[in-house]
Amino acid sequence: MRCKTSMLYITIQESNLLYRSRLDRDLDKAVLDYVSSISDDGEIIMYDILGSQAHTVMLYETGLIGRRDAGRILSALQGLEKARPGQDGKHEDIHELIESLVIGKAGPASGGRMHTGRSRNDQVALDMRMKIRHDTAAIFGQTAGLVRSMLELASRHTGTVMPLYTHMQQAQAGTFSHYMLAHAGALTRDAGRLCDSFPRVNQSPLGAGAVGGTSLPIDRGMTAQLLGFEGLVENSIDATSSRDFAAEYASVAAILMTNLSRLAEDFVIWSTSEFSFIELPDSLSSPSSVMPQKKNPDIMELTRGKAARAIGNLTGVLAASKGLATGYGRDLQEIKPLLWGSGRMASGALAVAESAVRSVTVNKAAMRKAASRGYLAALDVAEGLVIEGVPFRKAHKITGKLVQSAAAAGKPLDRLPPAEIKKALRGSGVDAAAVARLVRSATVQESLKRRVSRGSPAAAEQSRMIKEAGAAIDALSRRMDIQYGRVSSRLRTLSKKAAELAG
Amino acid sequence: MRCKTSMLYITIQESNLLYRSRLDRDLDKAVLDYVSSISDDGEIIMYDILGSQAHTVMLYETGLIGRRDAGRILSALQGLEKARPGQDGKHEDIHELIESLVIGKAGPASGGRMHTGRSRNDQVALDMRMKIRHDTAAIFGQTAGLVRSMLELASRHTGTVMPLYTHMQQAQAGTFSHYMLAHAGALTRDAGRLCDSFPRVNQSPLGAGAVGGTSLPIDRGMTAQLLGFEGLVENSIDATSSRDFAAEYASVAAILMTNLSRLAEDFVIWSTSEFSFIELPDSLSSPSSVMPQKKNPDIMELTRGKAARAIGNLTGVLAASKGLATGYGRDLQEIKPLLWGSGRMASGALAVAESAVRSVTVNKAAMRKAASRGYLAALDVAEGLVIEGVPFRKAHKITGKLVQSAAAAGKPLDRLPPAEIKKALRGSGVDAAAVARLVRSATVQESLKRRVSRGSPAAAEQSRMIKEAGAAIDALSRRMDIQYGRVSSRLRTLSKKAAELAG
Amino acid sequence: MRCKTSMLYITIQESNLLYRSRLDRDLDKAVLDYVSSISDDGEIIMYDILGSQAHTVMLYETGLIGRRDAGRILSALQGLEKARPGQDGKHEDIHELIESLVIGKAGPASGGRMHTGRSRNDQVALDMRMKIRHDTAAIFGQTAGLVRSMLELASRHTGTVMPLYTHMQQAQAGTFSHYMLAHAGALTRDAGRLCDSFPRVNQSPLGAGAVGGTSLPIDRGMTAQLLGFEGLVENSIDATSSRDFAAEYASVAAILMTNLSRLAEDFVIWSTSEFSFIELPDSLSSPSSVMPQKKNPDIMELTRGKAARAIGNLTGVLAASKGLATGYGRDLQEIKPLLWGSGRMASGALAVAESAVRSVTVNKAAMRKAASRGYLAALDVAEGLVIEGVPFRKAHKITGKLVQSAAAAGKPLDRLPPAEIKKALRGSGVDAAAVARLVRSATVQESLKRRVSRGSPAAAEQSRMIKEAGAAIDALSRRMDIQYGRVSSRLRTLSKKAAELAG
Amino acid sequence: MRCKTSMLYITIQESNLLYRSRLDRDLDKAVLDYVSSISDDGEIIMYDILGSQAHTVMLYETGLIGRRDAGRILSALQGLEKARPGQDGKHEDIHELIESLVIGKAGPASGGRMHTGRSRNDQVALDMRMKIRHDTAAIFGQTAGLVRSMLELASRHTGTVMPLYTHMQQAQAGTFSHYMLAHAGALTRDAGRLCDSFPRVNQSPLGAGAVGGTSLPIDRGMTAQLLGFEGLVENSIDATSSRDFAAEYASVAAILMTNLSRLAEDFVIWSTSEFSFIELPDSLSSPSSVMPQKKNPDIMELTRGKAARAIGNLTGVLAASKGLATGYGRDLQEIKPLLWGSGRMASGALAVAESAVRSVTVNKAAMRKAASRGYLAALDVAEGLVIEGVPFRKAHKITGKLVQSAAAAGKPLDRLPPAEIKKALRGSGVDAAAVARLVRSATVQESLKRRVSRGSPAAAEQSRMIKEAGAAIDALSRRMDIQYGRVSSRLRTLSKKAAELAG
Repeated sequence: MRCKTSMLYITIQESNLLYRSRLDRDLDKAVLDYVSSISDDGEIIMYDILGSQAHTVMLYETGLIGRRDAGRILSALQGLEKARPGQDGKHEDIHELIESLVIGKAGPASGGRMHTGRSRNDQVALDMRMKIRHDTAAIFGQTAGLVRSMLELASRHTGTVMPLYTHMQQAQAGTFSHYMLAHAGALTRDAGRLCDSFPRVNQSPLGAGAVGGTSLPIDRGMTAQLLGFEGLVENSIDATSSRDFAAEYASVAAILMTNLSRLAEDFVIWSTSEFSFIELPDSLSSPSSVMPQKKNPDIMELTRGKAARAIGNLTGVLAASKGLATGYGRDLQEIKPLLWGSGRMASGALAVAESAVRSVTVNKAAMRKAASRGYLAALDVAEGLVIEGVPFRKAHKITGKLVQSAAAAGKPLDRLPPAEIKKALRGSGVDAAAVARLVRSATVQESLKRRVSRGSPAAAEQSRMIKEAGAAIDALSRRMDIQYGRVSSRLRTLSKKAAELAG
Repeated sequence: MRCKTSMLYITIQESNLLYRSRLDRDLDKAVLDYVSSISDDGEIIMYDILGSQAHTVMLYETGLIGRRDAGRILSALQGLEKARPGQDGKHEDIHELIESLVIGKAGPASGGRMHTGRSRNDQVALDMRMKIRHDTAAIFGQTAGLVRSMLELASRHTGTVMPLYTHMQQAQAGTFSHYMLAHAGALTRDAGRLCDSFPRVNQSPLGAGAVGGTSLPIDRGMTAQLLGFEGLVENSIDATSSRDFAAEYASVAAILMTNLSRLAEDFVIWSTSEFSFIELPDSLSSPSSVMPQKKNPDIMELTRGKAARAIGNLTGVLAASKGLATGYGRDLQEIKPLLWGSGRMASGALAVAESAVRSVTVNKAAMRKAASRGYLAALDVAEGLVIEGVPFRKAHKITGKLVQSAAAAGKPLDRLPPAEIKKALRGSGVDAAAVARLVRSATVQESLKRRVSRGSPAAAEQSRMIKEAGAAIDALSRRMDIQYGRVSSRLRTLSKKAAELAG
Repeated sequence: MRCKTSMLYITIQESNLLYRSRLDRDLDKAVLDYVSSISDDGEIIMYDILGSQAHTVMLYETGLIGRRDAGRILSALQGLEKARPGQDGKHEDIHELIESLVIGKAGPASGGRMHTGRSRNDQVALDMRMKIRHDTAAIFGQTAGLVRSMLELASRHTGTVMPLYTHMQQAQAGTFSHYMLAHAGALTRDAGRLCDSFPRVNQSPLGAGAVGGTSLPIDRGMTAQLLGFEGLVENSIDATSSRDFAAEYASVAAILMTNLSRLAEDFVIWSTSEFSFIELPDSLSSPSSVMPQKKNPDIMELTRGKAARAIGNLTGVLAASKGLATGYGRDLQEIKPLLWGSGRMASGALAVAESAVRSVTVNKAAMRKAASRGYLAALDVAEGLVIEGVPFRKAHKITGKLVQSAAAAGKPLDRLPPAEIKKALRGSGVDAAAVARLVRSATVQESLKRRVSRGSPAAAEQSRMIKEAGAAIDALSRRMDIQYGRVSSRLRTLSKKAAELAG
Repeated sequence: MRCKTSMLYITIQESNLLYRSRLDRDLDKAVLDYVSSISDDGEIIMYDILGSQAHTVMLYETGLIGRRDAGRILSALQGLEKARPGQDGKHEDIHELIESLVIGKAGPASGGRMHTGRSRNDQVALDMRMKIRHDTAAIFGQTAGLVRSMLELASRHTGTVMPLYTHMQQAQAGTFSHYMLAHAGALTRDAGRLCDSFPRVNQSPLGAGAVGGTSLPIDRGMTAQLLGFEGLVENSIDATSSRDFAAEYASVAAILMTNLSRLAEDFVIWSTSEFSFIELPDSLSSPSSVMPQKKNPDIMELTRGKAARAIGNLTGVLAASKGLATGYGRDLQEIKPLLWGSGRMASGALAVAESAVRSVTVNKAAMRKAASRGYLAALDVAEGLVIEGVPFRKAHKITGKLVQSAAAAGKPLDRLPPAEIKKALRGSGVDAAAVARLVRSATVQESLKRRVSRGSPAAAEQSRMIKEAGAAIDALSRRMDIQYGRVSSRLRTLSKKAAELAG
């Protein structure tokens, strides 16, 4: 019994010694761990296979390999998407693994022809682009879904009065729907960025070879078409060594995550017992391991934390690319896990945000109460004075005095006694009766009714904006559907063709 | 005499003491330094004035202020673009400064009406958007100019043979034009990103007020139109507290700088005496302060360093926005200098890169010599075997042996003796005569001639690609010209209108 | 009149055109702007002069220059700290400027000897190290001051009850002093990091030359001693091209700022009207430009924003250094403004935080009220059951039920009726009377009284910890006083010597 | 057959659909994936068990649990280090998993007592600190080992002449050992940073509870001692919610990686065929997938790429902590994988660097040849003139002319004809014969012989510096051995005690 526990400690010690001496003992293993991307490559195995299918079909169509060889290769490629890379610890990357599996199944005479006219350098760029265009479309879909859920939530709360905040201080009267629309607006821009980046990523690098193309009469246009690309990254150096498309994806994801982190912050603050504006369901909360009374809205906190990681991933992608000599460098390998991680986090954060938006309980009473306690109609009084002809700066000053008097008296603004109003107006030349009228109507309800400017929390604006926001996200969705729909249908055709040739 | 020098030291000491005690002595000054953005606001003074002009015109047109007040305000605004903010150390930001200058010149009865129906919160968002849309257009113009200069340089070097590198090792035969086209390709995507981001930034937040709009009947559409915006950031919370447009600009600039840093790295390496591929003019080099023989291509190094700063600026923008509660927070003030810095660096780096591209001396002889020393045609031999029917993997292996033999004998591949060829082929079943023919033609010149794939350094591809790359950048330029042209013409109209009303 | 306004617009246009064509018009100016560090060098002018004084004294002492030359140089150096670099736009950096001013004043025959046996490369490393060691000491002093102010504030609030939060949810009963001590603890570690980094930065690079030292018999030990360094960065390549000391400083500053940003966040949240735990004085708040009732605690928000910038600066420093070939590269120039910026922000943030800690008004009643509304003693009930022999997991479950019952009944835990207690205990085998006793005492006051663990908010712990925290910061202060005291006294001696020789 | 391939495509489609609808279908799974840290927690399972052992021993010693319960818990903990977390997908984190396994094995009556007087919040802080102090020690060990290997390599190359570079341009004559010493110097500072950070991380948070300690009479000092900590993070809020120790570790790792990235860059450049200074063994190189002649030193490129990721990880840690309200927030969970990743990368990079340093083949002839081609002795000529009494600036100018003449004539400086020397001296008043003598000896060999300044590449300096650098790393190693030795021996004692009690 003793041995086990002390073994545990020895393991720690050994791992320490291991570090010191492992170079002598098993450098090969240490170096393979260091260089291998195989554990990150599970994410692109499907794309490596699809790319190999298209490449093989093209080699056959251009006569570079025969029908029988093509059939054997394509047959060998079938089912490989289920390969579990990294299990045997022998392969550095997915490209090498897939090729060796194909050679194993199809034999060297046929399988040895698959890598004709291409290189790992154009292959990895291809796989990354296929993965990113897919994830771009998927994340777009989730973003659009979240926007719609927000609009739906907003439509149920156009009349739910709450304070609007700046600097976390109560500022003006508003509605809960107005907050939701603000977040929906930001996310719609995220959807726009995803849409705009798609055509830049959806260009085929395949056939660029290692860096300078090939002397074999391959047909790059054909593979591009088979794989659903809109065109080629033509220049073979550019195609293999540029990663600005990856940096763009990482930055779009980081901006999206940053937007979601702000929604998360709002929800965390509104969930405090001091605010009590909302309640998240148990499925999005966690109990404490020791405090029996607690229910923590900590899933939203994870979104803030993951936003920080998405920022760090973006930093990593750019720092890895910065100052790199042109022509593929192995540094670029390190970009892959950062991209997959950012995509995964964005997808998860969107799913969680949508769940939160759909299931949140809104405490209308608490919101209304909070709104009524502040001096949220102060600006309305000042603006009322403006209508009366008082210059805004003067109106601002007078209203400031009125608020101070009310605060000193511990009263809401609309209950300020006439005597106090007169005192505040002394020497201003402003008509006390008019001011008294304005002050009387300085309630949250009146304030919201009077708000007329476009994009304000006025009720009429709310419904108009919900409708237009829906139209905006629909228009973007149509654009992405066309873009990714083309990819889908081409890949379907490729699958058929590959299956036919596989026999 | 002694005093002075020791004063110098005392200054250091004092500044130390100062830190410790300044809270007691002059907190107000310390806090003002800390909170003030005035030194960064010089960059947006013009936009603050233009925004105030448009706002004043709108207030007049909607009847919120009278003709006389409008005239006085607009008259007071004239010439303020020459104000030197920060000189008196009394103002926290440009908005406050401009308003106080206007009130000073036009009097409180008129000037005090300028801030009617708006807030610093929508104002700063407005100024940032006007500045960024301008800089986006300007940086776009420079990027397009650099691409054209690169194409021009490429067109003079479609026949300039040089090695292509991967991992900084010689890989395949190429041409200098091919490298230039690779960089031009990346920069054209940067131009595309600038174009795509423009419509997202070119939306007016003006009229959103502090966070919830206004009860005054302002016309947001009118100010948006007067200022050349494509539309509104409608939701008043979103308009005042979202900065994803700024993060997008910072990321587009960081990606652009990263692309330029790679050009810089290539030029630095090619300028070493060991490579000697290029020489930069004295205007882009620096002498050493001590070593008389030196001429350092260090301007390009600055581009690498500034790329790192642009990455850091992007990090700062995103980290400042992350987890911020919705509604304007003062944290956002800190984003401004990061944006102005990234823009300035991008503009400078583009200017320097264009100068380098226009003035670089290309050492064709050194490039050709370097290309002839390696085994750059090895892949061609392997691909020749593929044409003969040998599976690529086998051809790759055989060619590997041939290269090893040549290297061991210290000979170029095309001079490998037949006996060595036979030895390398032993047991392969491949015809020695055919291989000998392939080996004979394994020269850089032959290699380049045979390269047929699209986007390769083949001569025919070079001229085709130069032409198409020119067309691509022209198409983008037309798009940006339309986008920014609209802005220009609207601002011209506004200036006229403002001048008329100013009388 | 019209002209002015439309000139304004034309300026914008022109600046646009300027970008496009400035290469033709005034490349020299554009390149000088790009390469010059003169605007960042104001921060190190004092150190450049001190370094030149020490170097000149050493050249004289070792006989490399004569007494008269030394005198002239030292005399010329006097008063130069008041030079306003960057005014004439002719000098790229401070080293060049100072040398040219000295040559101007002392003549080429004497002044031309100042740069003997050194280079700009060791000089800039020297200036940076002198600046950073000073700022490290100054920021340390401010940090220690802030810690002491926090302890002072804590000592006045050991009895100020408030809720402790996790996930921003009320968790356990605590005291305001406990929060202050938590922040003081983090800042004391910051002080430790500043102390620890000092000896690594306080090593002299002077005399390393450009990269490989010199054939002249200079005495590096003498200049190191004159300037108060603890030793040499010996290796001349390392001395001139390593910047890990700068990265360490930037990271220490970023961690410090991050700690301060958390204090800022607490203060912002506690200042909301919903929490109302504290109030900051007007000097640390800002009014709204439009909303007359507002008082925003926005100075603390700036600290959060500046923390983000400090993180970005650190990113920039590391990204600029990453992958740089050894031997000075111009990229390193770009590090300087990042370091100066981080130092300035840290110093400002500390000053503002100290001011806030000294002047904050603590709303004890609001804190106590908030603490009494939650179920902050729930854990105490569970732990009471543990004392009774109930396994913690079971106790946790039972208490959970009790809290649910109390919450359902809308009562505090200590008012839970016996019937409800019995219901919650059903089937648990736990004695209801014992539980009833525990529940009765489940008040915030009792909870705090019972807390016994070390480092808890128990009153006895508070005073003990305040005392020990004071001792800890005092010990660190003594260490820094010795470290920087040595620097100060050496620089005083140098000033005397330089003044004597200057005659 | 067709099905399979088209299934593949359908999988992609489905995964797309999955995203869109997974909220309806299996939200629980999606949320669990999002919130779970279990896959990152394999790294701390050993520490969680050790911590639980120490906690249980303390609970027993203080009488909070009985001997039998303690024995059962400790017995149940044995062997759990082999648990494979994350297999069943049911547990959110390692703490929950271990506790549930213990309860399963020891029964709820005993196992349910293990979590008495602690919380997940202090537990995770404990595990992180134990993991980081171990990794700090391990990485320190590797760093020291690498420094020693560098010194060993340097000692074999004190006479290996090579150019020293600034701006990648040849600058002065040097030796290969001098470069190695520069890198060793930087890494020794890394070792110093690791040492200095150790005491800050090696403080026990255990017993801080959730945020405010406990009412149970636990003994925090005892668990701290059992686990080998130097002291306590006393304040319970600080102990559970501060992560500056983690940020410090991440920054120390990022700085170390940045230093290693510079070594990597040097090795990559020196491995080019244009430089040909070194050759790395096959075990540290990779072949090309298509170009038969290639051997890429791409393992070193990975170190550059991983340095970029370490920078990004640091960004992530700081951005996650920034602006977080005090008291544990779930954001902090996201820090863990960043820390483990940085540690793993640093360890791997050190192993690979040591392997490279031990196995690199140095091409002395190529280095010598490169050194002789430049004008590396130009500064020596100028300094010779200084010895003759010429002011340095004048000497610099004259030597510049001499170098220009030599370059124009295509000759090395020491072969410059007397006539040319005279021409260069015209009007300078400097004695031509003296200059001729200086020029004659302007060889690399002479230059190195004459270099006298401390820390220069002079042969005598090399051996002295190697010896002192060895003493410096030994002194640091002794410090770390004492620090971590204490940890080891305490953990050994704990294991014994735990095993005894387990029976």
